[in-house]
Amino acid sequence: MDTVVQNEVVAKAKSGKKAAPLLATASAGKRTQALRAIATRLRAQAADIVKKNAEDVERARQAGTAASLLDRLTLTPARMEDIAAGADAIAGQPDVLGEGETWTRPNGLEIQRVRVPLGLVGIIYEARPNVTVEAACIAFKAGNAVLLRGSSSALQTNRLLVAAMQEALQEVDLPPTLIQLIESGDRHDVDELVRLNRYLDVIIPRGGADLINRVVQTATVPVIETGIGNCHVYVDKAADLDKATRIVVNAKTHRPSVCNSAEKLLVHQDVADAFLPVIVKALSDKNVKLKGCAETVRRQPHLPVAPDQDWDIEYLDLVMAIKIVNTVEQAVEHINQHGSHHSDAIVTEDYAASRTFTRGVDSAAVYVNASTRFTDGGEFGFGGEMGISTQKLHARGPMGVRELTTNKYVVLGSGQTR
Amino acid sequence: MDTVVQNEVVAKAKSGKKAAPLLATASAGKRTQALRAIATRLRAQAADIVKKNAEDVERARQAGTAASLLDRLTLTPARMEDIAAGADAIAGQPDVLGEGETWTRPNGLEIQRVRVPLGLVGIIYEARPNVTVEAACIAFKAGNAVLLRGSSSALQTNRLLVAAMQEALQEVDLPPTLIQLIESGDRHDVDELVRLNRYLDVIIPRGGADLINRVVQTATVPVIETGIGNCHVYVDKAADLDKATRIVVNAKTHRPSVCNSAEKLLVHQDVADAFLPVIVKALSDKNVKLKGCAETVRRQPHLPVAPDQDWDIEYLDLVMAIKIVNTVEQAVEHINQHGSHHSDAIVTEDYAASRTFTRGVDSAAVYVNASTRFTDGGEFGFGGEMGISTQKLHARGPMGVRELTTNKYVVLGSGQTR
Repeated sequence: MDTVVQNEVVAKAKSGKKAAPLLATASAGKRTQALRAIATRLRAQAADIVKKNAEDVERARQAGTAASLLDRLTLTPARMEDIAAGADAIAGQPDVLGEGETWTRPNGLEIQRVRVPLGLVGIIYEARPNVTVEAACIAFKAGNAVLLRGSSSALQTNRLLVAAMQEALQEVDLPPTLIQLIESGDRHDVDELVRLNRYLDVIIPRGGADLINRVVQTATVPVIETGIGNCHVYVDKAADLDKATRIVVNAKTHRPSVCNSAEKLLVHQDVADAFLPVIVKALSDKNVKLKGCAETVRRQPHLPVAPDQDWDIEYLDLVMAIKIVNTVEQAVEHINQHGSHHSDAIVTEDYAASRTFTRGVDSAAVYVNASTRFTDGGEFGFGGEMGISTQKLHARGPMGVRELTTNKYVVLGSGQTR
Repeated sequence: MDTVVQNEVVAKAKSGKKAAPLLATASAGKRTQALRAIATRLRAQAADIVKKNAEDVERARQAGTAASLLDRLTLTPARMEDIAAGADAIAGQPDVLGEGETWTRPNGLEIQRVRVPLGLVGIIYEARPNVTVEAACIAFKAGNAVLLRGSSSALQTNRLLVAAMQEALQEVDLPPTLIQLIESGDRHDVDELVRLNRYLDVIIPRGGADLINRVVQTATVPVIETGIGNCHVYVDKAADLDKATRIVVNAKTHRPSVCNSAEKLLVHQDVADAFLPVIVKALSDKNVKLKGCAETVRRQPHLPVAPDQDWDIEYLDLVMAIKIVNTVEQAVEHINQHGSHHSDAIVTEDYAASRTFTRGVDSAAVYVNASTRFTDGGEFGFGGEMGISTQKLHARGPMGVRELTTNKYVVLGSGQTR
């Protein structure tokens, strides 16, 4: 690896770790003040940032980047205002640090379990520059120092966004090293970052399956996996088929590029003949490309057969595969075996089927008669979110500010020994 | 790797994962019944197990195993009764599954955050066969399937203990694959186990620093690090020196081979001349070998100088290194830089010093005027414990039954879409 890259990653991790205790022991008022100052700076510098962003976008365009990615990369004055308003909203959320319980043991020891920051949080993410501010602000709200590693295609934009946030920190007498960006753009800096156990307390990868898998395979720092979503809607034999149609169409088409969109439709055999013609038409009208299992294709012969590997993957596009199942238990088994343990829904009016599904499906969020699209920090009422955890350790489902903390036991004695 | 080994590890992980949902959806009453049956079976088979254990111990003795390790390996009728009583105690603890909160969103969606088991928990541990039962029962109480990988020196004993637990499971109509032991004894089965993300939800290594580091370096399955303890007692300038003496002697000598023992003593320079002669005599009387920093040795010239690397290591023995510091802040900085973030204590009668220490030290448990030896699930009031987590993700400090669970969101709707 390039020594300059390595030096940058290590130096920033080291200075971030060193700064972290200053934020951990700062007051909630100081953190709020800093977040307000960040919002103000971002608004003041919005025009400059939008201008510099246009250069990143133009460079990406010339490099042949797809239109959908160019859109994600682009900042407009309206988007800058959304970003600044997001920082303000996080500033306005209640503080969670110092929350806890306390109890006293028979020997008189008073034990306090207190919520404290994680320390230095590394966030590795892809093209969207709004993540730079949103992720930094949520982690900061929880009292953490942040080390950001964004996409090289957004480097100039991210530099200005981070510079604005650092100026805001200095304005309120906090060290700018609390929010830092790795600027090298070298792919290997990710491999370096995820093994710096000495400085980093946690790594959160936000992005596609390739990024997440690479981090999980190489990291020695604890990782919170986010956002791979191979989500299902299962239409039970006791489903209200109108409700089912609305839910499936929403879950598939409302925003097909995000992780809580449905990718697979499971249909109980008893309602397949009634439901398939309706849903195939409804989804086709929305330009969804459909594939099916052998049983589906037998009933809808114009559909192509879905290859075996399709059941395990996320399309992130207007594509959906349909499978016919014999029982709710078979639906549960299919979801647990092939899904990504993110968000899965049953549509049913049957109590027992709803219980079998919600108890049996091993996913972060399990829905009855609602779209999978609700798995989101905002929709759950958490304010912003850092991502959707699909692992079981530490945080599962939408991660808000509270999920970016840990606890410490403070034990107050008067000379106790064992 | 030996294919037979690999096959055993994969086959048991697969069958454990398959069995896990049966336990997750079993009632609390059924889990209690199983744990009671385990206690009964262990009592009934205690004599046979003690007899077979003697063979393991004899084999280890012939292989030149140290006396302290032989002691840890040995089961007696009294220890068997302790083990069975432990299973009974876990059975009697309140159940934690299904606990949670519920709230309703403005759109009418009812969101439930429900405590559920992790799934299949892998536990890798060293010689003590009592861990086989204790770890299995705690994880089982939390609704998890368990895959145990113990020390090859205890293999015959562990086989009988697991067989007794499996018979108890069958007696209450639960699959024996809920509690399994990897029997190969091949070192490489650990490397295999920690990368089986498809089947294992979490890996908990319980043992020495070498085992823990090896697991952290090689695992792709999420890990909860436990039990490396380079713990400190800091004697402040405002310490009650009698209290300090009692606490230091207890923290060092009560049970020197465990992770919450103190390994380092930090002394404020203002009390060094008064305290050092007293504590050096008190510890020497208990056969503690002492070493010191240059300042300590200047005052206590008969002590050897502690090599630099000593400040970062765990002795797990009657050895202690003493360092003189100028301020409480310097003590905090030393502990954060060299400690293992496990348990650290201040002895002081000064309010501000106690606050600086408890807020500044980044450890799982921070004590004021009490021995570090209290970091323990039982002493904290959690019933048993799976180990002491020294990481910040998921669980920090003593891990009881509650720490071996995760959550699931169950979202109940009436047709909501976005």
